Amino acid sequence: MDSDKLNVGLIGAGRIGRLHAQHLSQRIAGARLLMISDVHLESAQSCAKQHHVDQAVSDYHQILEHPDIGAVVICSPTDTHAEIMMDAAQHGKHIFCEKPIDHDLAKIDQALETVNKAGVLLQIGFNRRFDSNHRRIKDAVQNGEIGEPHLLHIVSRDPAPPSIEYIKSSGGIFLDMSIHDLDMAPYVLGQEVEEVYAAGSVKIDPAIGEAGDLDTAVIVLKFSNGVMGTIENSRQAVYGYDQRVEVFGSGGSVTSDNRYPNEVTVFGTQNIHRDLPHHFFMDRYIDSYVDEMSQFVSAVLTGQPSPLEGSAGRAAVVLALAAWKSYRENRPVRPDEVV
Amino acid sequence: MDSDKLNVGLIGAGRIGRLHAQHLSQRIAGARLLMISDVHLESAQSCAKQHHVDQAVSDYHQILEHPDIGAVVICSPTDTHAEIMMDAAQHGKHIFCEKPIDHDLAKIDQALETVNKAGVLLQIGFNRRFDSNHRRIKDAVQNGEIGEPHLLHIVSRDPAPPSIEYIKSSGGIFLDMSIHDLDMAPYVLGQEVEEVYAAGSVKIDPAIGEAGDLDTAVIVLKFSNGVMGTIENSRQAVYGYDQRVEVFGSGGSVTSDNRYPNEVTVFGTQNIHRDLPHHFFMDRYIDSYVDEMSQFVSAVLTGQPSPLEGSAGRAAVVLALAAWKSYRENRPVRPDEVV
Amino acid sequence: MDSDKLNVGLIGAGRIGRLHAQHLSQRIAGARLLMISDVHLESAQSCAKQHHVDQAVSDYHQILEHPDIGAVVICSPTDTHAEIMMDAAQHGKHIFCEKPIDHDLAKIDQALETVNKAGVLLQIGFNRRFDSNHRRIKDAVQNGEIGEPHLLHIVSRDPAPPSIEYIKSSGGIFLDMSIHDLDMAPYVLGQEVEEVYAAGSVKIDPAIGEAGDLDTAVIVLKFSNGVMGTIENSRQAVYGYDQRVEVFGSGGSVTSDNRYPNEVTVFGTQNIHRDLPHHFFMDRYIDSYVDEMSQFVSAVLTGQPSPLEGSAGRAAVVLALAAWKSYRENRPVRPDEVV
Amino acid sequence: MDSDKLNVGLIGAGRIGRLHAQHLSQRIAGARLLMISDVHLESAQSCAKQHHVDQAVSDYHQILEHPDIGAVVICSPTDTHAEIMMDAAQHGKHIFCEKPIDHDLAKIDQALETVNKAGVLLQIGFNRRFDSNHRRIKDAVQNGEIGEPHLLHIVSRDPAPPSIEYIKSSGGIFLDMSIHDLDMAPYVLGQEVEEVYAAGSVKIDPAIGEAGDLDTAVIVLKFSNGVMGTIENSRQAVYGYDQRVEVFGSGGSVTSDNRYPNEVTVFGTQNIHRDLPHHFFMDRYIDSYVDEMSQFVSAVLTGQPSPLEGSAGRAAVVLALAAWKSYRENRPVRPDEVV
Repeated sequence: MDSDKLNVGLIGAGRIGRLHAQHLSQRIAGARLLMISDVHLESAQSCAKQHHVDQAVSDYHQILEHPDIGAVVICSPTDTHAEIMMDAAQHGKHIFCEKPIDHDLAKIDQALETVNKAGVLLQIGFNRRFDSNHRRIKDAVQNGEIGEPHLLHIVSRDPAPPSIEYIKSSGGIFLDMSIHDLDMAPYVLGQEVEEVYAAGSVKIDPAIGEAGDLDTAVIVLKFSNGVMGTIENSRQAVYGYDQRVEVFGSGGSVTSDNRYPNEVTVFGTQNIHRDLPHHFFMDRYIDSYVDEMSQFVSAVLTGQPSPLEGSAGRAAVVLALAAWKSYRENRPVRPDEVV
Repeated sequence: MDSDKLNVGLIGAGRIGRLHAQHLSQRIAGARLLMISDVHLESAQSCAKQHHVDQAVSDYHQILEHPDIGAVVICSPTDTHAEIMMDAAQHGKHIFCEKPIDHDLAKIDQALETVNKAGVLLQIGFNRRFDSNHRRIKDAVQNGEIGEPHLLHIVSRDPAPPSIEYIKSSGGIFLDMSIHDLDMAPYVLGQEVEEVYAAGSVKIDPAIGEAGDLDTAVIVLKFSNGVMGTIENSRQAVYGYDQRVEVFGSGGSVTSDNRYPNEVTVFGTQNIHRDLPHHFFMDRYIDSYVDEMSQFVSAVLTGQPSPLEGSAGRAAVVLALAAWKSYRENRPVRPDEVV
Repeated sequence: MDSDKLNVGLIGAGRIGRLHAQHLSQRIAGARLLMISDVHLESAQSCAKQHHVDQAVSDYHQILEHPDIGAVVICSPTDTHAEIMMDAAQHGKHIFCEKPIDHDLAKIDQALETVNKAGVLLQIGFNRRFDSNHRRIKDAVQNGEIGEPHLLHIVSRDPAPPSIEYIKSSGGIFLDMSIHDLDMAPYVLGQEVEEVYAAGSVKIDPAIGEAGDLDTAVIVLKFSNGVMGTIENSRQAVYGYDQRVEVFGSGGSVTSDNRYPNEVTVFGTQNIHRDLPHHFFMDRYIDSYVDEMSQFVSAVLTGQPSPLEGSAGRAAVVLALAAWKSYRENRPVRPDEVV
Repeated sequence: MDSDKLNVGLIGAGRIGRLHAQHLSQRIAGARLLMISDVHLESAQSCAKQHHVDQAVSDYHQILEHPDIGAVVICSPTDTHAEIMMDAAQHGKHIFCEKPIDHDLAKIDQALETVNKAGVLLQIGFNRRFDSNHRRIKDAVQNGEIGEPHLLHIVSRDPAPPSIEYIKSSGGIFLDMSIHDLDMAPYVLGQEVEEVYAAGSVKIDPAIGEAGDLDTAVIVLKFSNGVMGTIENSRQAVYGYDQRVEVFGSGGSVTSDNRYPNEVTVFGTQNIHRDLPHHFFMDRYIDSYVDEMSQFVSAVLTGQPSPLEGSAGRAAVVLALAAWKSYRENRPVRPDEVV
């Protein structure tokens, strides 16, 4: 066993857990995936078998008590994140936790305080910050390539809505989907949000509305100094995963386009066309998932600070809660109204 | 004198008046520009000379009293539009009037009523409706190429702010600049606006703020059935005239890009680049100006209805006033709150 | 009659003649189209009527003998160009002549000598030199934006083949179609061709082959210093007029794309598409036609030299003849082998 | 040791060998890299250490004699390929061999015959066939998306020339660099080449010319039925790796663009720009390298035929030799003139 590798335990072997399992076992040289847990033992076992991991268990405490494991990757349902985080912190394990931390700010605050006291490293899974397009946008803003930012626009559309079952426990569109964009906007601008105005509707599936959620939304963010941002969300872009950011400033503008499986154009008798962009988030964002985990492992191994701290995870939840309040009251809401 | 041509009088020989003078005299086969008026006689004279027009006068009533003149093109300052329109209508002249009709709804209503009673044709100068890009967007929506519309986004940025002098009498950004987009949004979607939320700031020139105006703005429009639109305005895009529209729907999405002086790309040692887009509205929108005037002349000559009626000119002013009210009160405003 | 305008006579009222008639009468302020001739008098008359020209005749000598006419625009069939040019030169008329001058070098030489002796201005109708894309490519090369040129590639495809009747008297693909590219290549590079290798085939219509012509061709040009160029021609690009140039050099590369009627993209369920590029040369190259004629008129009025001299018209014919010889003998041919 | 994995030995631990080592050890689930050889033992050792491979040797025979090794990946210098292939075949090892097989057709024929008799699987390393862009082009042609092909154009430019040392033993530009394109052209069209015409020059570094090679080249290929192709090669595109293919046909056209590290565009005060395309072949073609090796491993494990047989490796060498002959004699050359 290489002493220079980080032994990792994976908690939760669902869709996103399996993605991390693959990267931890094949793509990230510094990591060794030692154990996988899932309340459905069969899920843990099949995931372990696929990635040549020896131990699969149903109780995540076995991971926390394993003396060789230095870090955990939490991919369990959202409402278990806070508790597992606190458990893991108290066992001295470093933590990678999928977004969102929780839907409840009190629980988030308690978890972050526990993590903080334990002195372990915590990284939140906002993978999009590690995407080369979004990062290039951030760099352009930071390097002054567009002068002082004035306006931001994020388009973030999923290719298809999740199951109604999932939606019911998701916290709704703002906490489940917009939260990525509510993290991205202040990250890209390097500024804090002062006010949120949200509008939304049910355009794709009435069942989403019956579940108390929205499937189409617009959010306006006011930052300090009069900078303004807009976010457009839809649960269903039939042409694929649509993820674009634009920042306009005093010295120019910067925009990102989608990513495609190829750069081929066909000139036909009816039109000029290319194939659809990547449809699935795993295709579109695969490199960002590898990169976030690679940076997590590297930060733990070298003792560097977390590249994406818990406070950012909390801030995005605050904005999502403000968006829900704004939508319900149909008026602009300040973040401090929800904390 | 061809009896099959429409004799036109031009009222106001400023920048936009000169543009129409050129088109009326050179590009529109069915029109003959007979007389030009401007309160500054020299302006009328120099414009007339340039375009081989025989008569230049300072008092527009001479145009209205000319028996051979069938139509007038009103390019005088906004606060004179309503009065001249009523005068012209009472003289039986058909009317092309630059936008906006007026800043005051009562004056607009009176003018439209007078025009209506006189039975003359009235066309409002929202030239962008005649642009091939905007029209293609409209067609895509109308033809169902993107299914049912869910979201609309308009980027509309000028290359440079007008003079502070101009701004002071412009009615402010919503009535002067956003008004094009407030006309475009319902036009493209074929739907009425039910609520307006506007945010704005002064990012480009403090003098604009001192004049009581904004230079950067975001507007959210709610249409019937939960369709939502956002408009982004800036008085200064340093890279040129930025005019794009995107409509997202149940069956896809449609976007327009800017227009460039050439389609040439240079691959250099530092980056891949192309020349800036058109900088000036006359370059960017020249074809739309020719087309709107051509359609006006043709409608008058053939007795067809106006391609852009006075009611559309009024509706955009209502939305602009609602935007101002929303901005000032920082809350969503329904159009019927300002009428 | 403005004494500061150039009075022009148009010889040949076919498709291209009518194009020039429209521009001379409407778009070019410095010109006045006085008389139109065509061996088919009706053609001359209908063209004259459409553009409000007073005089239509069948014999072009009436144009040459008109004392007020300062310049002629020759749009008659190619095999009459040389004779009319000489006639016009001897009458002291300045000459705009459509390409190619002739298919026979001896006749070209005689005509150019006559023009030269007469001291009149001669401009050849290689309109593409006046296109903003091609000109931008030329500028990039000339300004050193791509360092020293190494390689050139021209794609030049028509949307549909002309009639077999036309093809029979056209001189074949190299003299009729490639000739534009054989003018463009040395123009863009600012270098002379030292060797030509041509290959061709009949892929589109066997009747073209039966008429002794090709419809698909590739030409390799060797310039001084080892610079090489390739030209791709096709008589039928089903998606529209395809006109692109690429120059690669020591410091980078420059490419031009086609021109489209709009910049709108539709994201659908099957693909991402835009409308076809301009299909017809009059749409694609309209501005270049206006510009070449405008520069002709301006050069005559101001006594400036021709922007596109007869020698360039001759040089392109030499290369086209070399291409035919190369194709027939299946070997590289030097231009001096055909003169 | 999983019995369902293919044990592989790597012969040659230079740049390309190390690339394959990384993929075999990390990215290809079905492979296990057991041993690495290099005549420079230190190279083998450092490569083995980096990828956690136990055995590093200087003599490749140790790989051939290892009973557990089922396949070899040959990345040694070109002039050793044929001999190692024959050795490996006689030891019953399946073979992945980098391109080109050899510069000498007699040696190639002998090697292919030996491989054939031994009944082992042989795959040639034309990785570009496995690139998603090139494959999409191939598919478009094969599926009839552009009708019958008429014209092909390949742009293939390296970002920088290799060392003069390398060039001296490379076989020259046609055998070292164009060979990829000479494989791609018939592959994409599904047709055989009937004639080759090549032109070339030294534009980038006189030392390349002094070494008897060219750095800039144009190749014209004639296929059956009058289909024609052109290839443009340069050893140095200062803006990065330039790899594009275009096929034009009776029903349309298909083109591929380069691949970029991001899809971000910056609108600045001088121009509109994006970052340079991938500069290094390992960035540009990384996925194709993973895919070709993955398909090799899979073909061996499942007993499927080679996805890229030795005959294709031979055919490209024949065309490269014909290109050299054509260049030297400045005339079109048929492939059967060099075999």
